[in-house]
Amino acid sequence: MLPDGGRREVAGAPPPPATCCPDLHRAVELVGRRWSGAILWVLLDADRPLRFTDIRAAVPEISDRLLAERLRELEAHDLVAPADAAPGYVPTPSARALRPALVELRTWARRWLA
Amino acid sequence: MLPDGGRREVAGAPPPPATCCPDLHRAVELVGRRWSGAILWVLLDADRPLRFTDIRAAVPEISDRLLAERLRELEAHDLVAPADAAPGYVPTPSARALRPALVELRTWARRWLA
Repeated sequence: MLPDGGRREVAGAPPPPATCCPDLHRAVELVGRRWSGAILWVLLDADRPLRFTDIRAAVPEISDRLLAERLRELEAHDLVAPADAAPGYVPTPSARALRPALVELRTWARRWLA
Repeated sequence: MLPDGGRREVAGAPPPPATCCPDLHRAVELVGRRWSGAILWVLLDADRPLRFTDIRAAVPEISDRLLAERLRELEAHDLVAPADAAPGYVPTPSARALRPALVELRTWARRWLA
C-alpha cells in the first residue's frame, strides 16, 4: 500500500470532487420511489385523515397493491401514521417538515418541465 | 350519464381530495431515479466541468453502466450538458434552478433521517 493510502495524484490535475452527499441520497431514495411523493403530497394537503380509498382516488394511476406497499414503507420510515381519532392515515411531523422541499420541487417542475 | 358527470356523493361524506399533483410527480420521477440526485449534486457543487471519471469518483457506489445511462437521461431532460470550453459535463440553468429543492431535501434528511 502506498503511504498516501493508494491514491496517486496527477501533477497539475484538479482535485476530484468530494464524495457525494449520503444525506441527500437517502432522502431521494425514500421520497423518489414511484408515487411516494404524490402520496405524501395528498396527505399533507388534506385537512383530515385519509382512508386508503381516499388516497387511491387522489392518485388514480396507482394500483391497490402498490399503494398498500408504499403506505407500509412510508409508515416504516415514520412519514405516515394511522390517525388516532378517525380511520385513515395522517402525515407525521417528519412528513410535515418535508413539505417545503416538495413545494420547491413542484415550483421547479412548473417552471422547467413545462 | 348522470347530470353531474357520473359522480355520486354520499350525503354527509367529506369530498374526496383533489387529484394529485402531476407537476410534483414528474419532478420526483425524474430527480428520484436512483443516483440522479447525487449526480446533479456533484455537478452543481463543482466549479468546473466534470469528466465521467470525476463523477464516478464522487459517487463511488454507481457503476459505469448506470452512470452513463443516467447522464444520457439527464442530458435528454436538459439538466446536464457537455461543457463548451473543456471536456466534461456541466449543469444547465434548469439544473441550477433545482438546487434549492435539493438543499431543502438534504436539510430535511439531516434532521429527520438521522
